[in-house]
Amino acid sequence: MNTHADWFYTDCPTIEQHWVDQGRSHQDTLTKPPGSLGRLEQIAIEFCGWQSTLSPECERVQISVFAADHGIAQQGVSAFPPAVTAQMVQNFLAGGAAISVLSRHLNAEFHVVNCGVATALADAPTLVNKPIAQGTQDFSFEPAMTELQCHAALALGAQQICNSQLFIGGEMGIGNTSAASAILSLLLNQPSGVTVGPGTGLQHEGITHKQDLIGRAIEHHKPNIRGALDVLRCVGGFEIAALVGAYIQSAQRGIPVLVDGFITTAAALVAVRLNPSTRPWLMFSHQSAEPAHQLALSAMDAVPILSLEMRLGEGSGAAMAVPVIQNALRLHNGMATFQQAGVSQ
Amino acid sequence: MNTHADWFYTDCPTIEQHWVDQGRSHQDTLTKPPGSLGRLEQIAIEFCGWQSTLSPECERVQISVFAADHGIAQQGVSAFPPAVTAQMVQNFLAGGAAISVLSRHLNAEFHVVNCGVATALADAPTLVNKPIAQGTQDFSFEPAMTELQCHAALALGAQQICNSQLFIGGEMGIGNTSAASAILSLLLNQPSGVTVGPGTGLQHEGITHKQDLIGRAIEHHKPNIRGALDVLRCVGGFEIAALVGAYIQSAQRGIPVLVDGFITTAAALVAVRLNPSTRPWLMFSHQSAEPAHQLALSAMDAVPILSLEMRLGEGSGAAMAVPVIQNALRLHNGMATFQQAGVSQ
Repeated sequence: MNTHADWFYTDCPTIEQHWVDQGRSHQDTLTKPPGSLGRLEQIAIEFCGWQSTLSPECERVQISVFAADHGIAQQGVSAFPPAVTAQMVQNFLAGGAAISVLSRHLNAEFHVVNCGVATALADAPTLVNKPIAQGTQDFSFEPAMTELQCHAALALGAQQICNSQLFIGGEMGIGNTSAASAILSLLLNQPSGVTVGPGTGLQHEGITHKQDLIGRAIEHHKPNIRGALDVLRCVGGFEIAALVGAYIQSAQRGIPVLVDGFITTAAALVAVRLNPSTRPWLMFSHQSAEPAHQLALSAMDAVPILSLEMRLGEGSGAAMAVPVIQNALRLHNGMATFQQAGVSQ
Repeated sequence: MNTHADWFYTDCPTIEQHWVDQGRSHQDTLTKPPGSLGRLEQIAIEFCGWQSTLSPECERVQISVFAADHGIAQQGVSAFPPAVTAQMVQNFLAGGAAISVLSRHLNAEFHVVNCGVATALADAPTLVNKPIAQGTQDFSFEPAMTELQCHAALALGAQQICNSQLFIGGEMGIGNTSAASAILSLLLNQPSGVTVGPGTGLQHEGITHKQDLIGRAIEHHKPNIRGALDVLRCVGGFEIAALVGAYIQSAQRGIPVLVDGFITTAAALVAVRLNPSTRPWLMFSHQSAEPAHQLALSAMDAVPILSLEMRLGEGSGAAMAVPVIQNALRLHNGMATFQQAGVSQ
């Protein structure tokens, strides 16, 4: 299957170190004790490298929310019924969801991608309506997707990348923390007791049930796994595969990616395993309250910008981090130097 | 001296619990798993209480930066020479400092208050030019201020409070981490080895010198300390006293305060010790890289919103947290309810 699909193995651009170095030098000329803007300095310096400039910008932001249903949602792994996926897509489109509110205030290029919601969705201006199937198969019994479907979902994600200064992918899919946990178990060789958490709000017994189910599922699929693509196909979801494709394509086009929370970080890990040259183009927005998120972040040496105990998904944590990035760049571009201001160094 | 100065002992308004409860109930109707917006939900609920409304707002922000010089700065306790205080005030006024850049983008009501800079400053539209003296006395030998000066600085801070929805105080004063550390040592009964850190960038020997100096100073003043007001007078600074006055006055007028970093948290601790009814009106913006900041936060059971390894002061960390607050309120006000969106609960 690596014929027409080889696109996602293509190397992402190399970041030019001299722009990073110049960005760092510029930071040290600004009227503040060296290093005193902490993380904000690192963010600005990274953007200098990403945009090959000393005056980086992050005003044009793309937010794409990928939605799909999951066969495994029939097994009671979520605090919400599967019908909520389609209902929430309508809420995204109507402007009432968290990510809709945040996108509006960011003036972001916003759209929702139906990658495989179980019920048919009416067309709408901000909906990309290209379902691959009416949800994945239940991965506790069989692979979530066929190889063809997996490649189609990767390509669907890649096709969404516009010409922005920052790409944010969000997700909606009842049952998708189960898929993300299973991906982490298989990629990081961790038992489901470590990778499975409460998701949208399971209580104690619900978590135990989910852990048992995912535990059996990963044992079932393990013999057939030869790499990250098999993991994605066997236990992933259409929206997760679309995120993987979008992340790789964004990086290939030199657009930095701001990863959201638990599910998107699992997608980012798949992307990095498929194509390690993706990693330098990823930044991580927030620490999710979902316990295994830290595990996935650590596997990529990722330190998120915010920690607000959020666990909503949709891209909401990433959207919250955008003002931090924008202010980091405004400070980098707008502060006076010691020389300009006549301040003793 | 508690005659005409009793204003800062006056109780702050009590927060009406029913608005807090209604805010919490509203959060649970919004289209998201309950609690999934984490800290953002708490922020919105707190604002419901502060503003006695179900539709809180934080669009009108006041940022006042209080500046003053410190006698102790002559003792080599800072990585920067004392002349930098006045130079940075000029930089604030000219728009080149970090807080100037951030204030501009927040559309904040911004001004700088000369509480006691060592050199005379020319008048400027955004400068409140009311120095109490040309810097404090060196508190390694004698009290930093007289009682009269301390009360004047408290009043100067209080006079700055405008009619905004959020008050941020910033500070500038070479040597003021020394004052803040001494305040924390005396209020929390901690040795200078615990409360003194690198400030703007001291290296190892510099920190040891600073610790020894502050250690001797707190032993010198201890016998004369009967309360928080004595601590402020003996080892504080004009800008720190102004912050204390501003915080208390803001709380008394029912305007929530967003505390910045290390020095402002020391001021907040003085405010809370002077007038405990101030505490419910304070929120804490960020965890500073200055090591003893955590100590001061813990003493007030305060958990800051951000942790970005910043250590600049000026109010910059607080300004960074404003978009988080604004988005928390936009979500609270702008998200659809389950009922409105027809989403299953």
